Amino acid sequence: MPKTKATTKTTALTTTTKHGEEPEIASKFGLAIAFLLSFLPFYVQFVIRLLLTHFPPRYRPSTGTCTLVGAGPGDPSLLTIGAHEAIRNADIVISDLLVPERIQALVRGKLLKLPRTTRRKSDDAQCDAYVWMRDYIRLGLRVVRLKGGDPFVFGRGGEEVLYLRSEGIPAARIKVIPGISSCIAAGESALIPVTHRGVADQFLVVTGRGEGGRVPDIPSFSARRTVVVMMGMSRLHMLVTSFLNDAHYPRHTPCAIVEKATWADQRVVRGTLETIEKLVEMQGIKNPAVVYVGHVVNILANGGNKCMVNTPDEGVEV
Amino acid sequence: MPKTKATTKTTALTTTTKHGEEPEIASKFGLAIAFLLSFLPFYVQFVIRLLLTHFPPRYRPSTGTCTLVGAGPGDPSLLTIGAHEAIRNADIVISDLLVPERIQALVRGKLLKLPRTTRRKSDDAQCDAYVWMRDYIRLGLRVVRLKGGDPFVFGRGGEEVLYLRSEGIPAARIKVIPGISSCIAAGESALIPVTHRGVADQFLVVTGRGEGGRVPDIPSFSARRTVVVMMGMSRLHMLVTSFLNDAHYPRHTPCAIVEKATWADQRVVRGTLETIEKLVEMQGIKNPAVVYVGHVVNILANGGNKCMVNTPDEGVEV
Repeated sequence: MPKTKATTKTTALTTTTKHGEEPEIASKFGLAIAFLLSFLPFYVQFVIRLLLTHFPPRYRPSTGTCTLVGAGPGDPSLLTIGAHEAIRNADIVISDLLVPERIQALVRGKLLKLPRTTRRKSDDAQCDAYVWMRDYIRLGLRVVRLKGGDPFVFGRGGEEVLYLRSEGIPAARIKVIPGISSCIAAGESALIPVTHRGVADQFLVVTGRGEGGRVPDIPSFSARRTVVVMMGMSRLHMLVTSFLNDAHYPRHTPCAIVEKATWADQRVVRGTLETIEKLVEMQGIKNPAVVYVGHVVNILANGGNKCMVNTPDEGVEV
Repeated sequence: MPKTKATTKTTALTTTTKHGEEPEIASKFGLAIAFLLSFLPFYVQFVIRLLLTHFPPRYRPSTGTCTLVGAGPGDPSLLTIGAHEAIRNADIVISDLLVPERIQALVRGKLLKLPRTTRRKSDDAQCDAYVWMRDYIRLGLRVVRLKGGDPFVFGRGGEEVLYLRSEGIPAARIKVIPGISSCIAAGESALIPVTHRGVADQFLVVTGRGEGGRVPDIPSFSARRTVVVMMGMSRLHMLVTSFLNDAHYPRHTPCAIVEKATWADQRVVRGTLETIEKLVEMQGIKNPAVVYVGHVVNILANGGNKCMVNTPDEGVEV
């Protein structure tokens, strides 16, 4: 486009100067203007950039939206209807790697996957997510940030909301859709209710991946409390020691671990705080896994541990 | 059907005796047989009843199924796809009264609602649910037991599974489909994340409706723990006292209450442990409500408290 314009202008100038004086100088002047005009798009871009950089972001209009969507524990039938719609209608889906293929396959727009991260590199991946979100929202697109489980349960959802706000994305364009969190659903798929009348009337959810290598601060033993540890496999020994020595849990307290809850290859291991480490080692259980500690572990245990699969007709068998 | 059969038989007998002797006696005998035969369906029913009553239930075949389904906090778009399918395909749906109309409207089969209960009467309602479930499963129907939130979070789901097992319903015919629990989603709809890096790395969920009027056993104050109290409005004063005096929480600890989370008339009240009782009284907040105690309450609070509504495009505004 710019080149065509420039050529036309040059021709016009040359034509005019045919009838005037000093046609050679006019021709040179015309060429110079044409040359300068050919850069017009860059000038426009430069001015826009200047405006974008110097205007306070909150005064800039934006038509893009960002929806933080909880993808649930893995089984696509555990997506909410709202999450399903948001994924289908998104222009861009920025997905955690842990979200299973069958859910990622629902994306009709562009799918961006964050890399698999070690604990140390997870901040870098988070940075990528931030930049992608911001840039695509500014382009006016409907962005979905797809997270395993629920965005507000160890999902950095709150941090992402704060980041987007700090980048001047208007509040009305940021939304959150809850997802089934595996802190409850992993137990459910192994028939471990987090509460059960007369057995447990409260439950505590902690992460085994605390900052700076810290073990979570487990409150002292209470027989009526279920403790749920998410992503605790890499520090299992420290965790068990903390339960036994710091929180004074009896060694025979029932303990179960659900690996890849609701996925096709879900596995469940049941034991006690004393035996669980050995069992995990024998079975080679790894993250993503959820640990349950408390008497609810065995309440419904005798019916087998079939995993939950896709259709309701093949749900958790008990 | 039985009446027609009996009439046919009588005619046949009369025809035969036309050629034999003592037609009158035969005719009377035939009539008596016909009369007795007309009760045949009742004999069959009696024998079946005898068998049903005296055979140990576990040896009886059953084709009915029961699915415990979590309906989520209220917004129909927060139903999972699996729950939606189960509700649509059910012959009988036994629903808690707290499940909103818009979800009950999805039922295509027969909808049975449990009565609104006080704490004292909830055991009676539970009994009704038990009997209905058992009877309809034995009739070979697909029964859905629809519960607000998640079946295994203060939902008596575990008890219902144990009851059905004790009634001889085979394990393969009892299923559980998790639901979005308001312990996390109520906060989400008011932009209160239960965890947030550097602010809270664990959360404890308790019920304010403990057995025998007991106040939940809250562990001592920890700045990095969020405490979630479900259905705590009727005992709010006892709860606050317990937080302040027994668990030694500072009076200025942020506290928020979300009433009717994700419903169209959701309300949010924010204050501190010191001010919350007064605020609740002023606003007339009632159950169903979820209480959040901890510093996460104010992390994202400045963006308003719009409630979550049906479509993803009108989700939580932040």
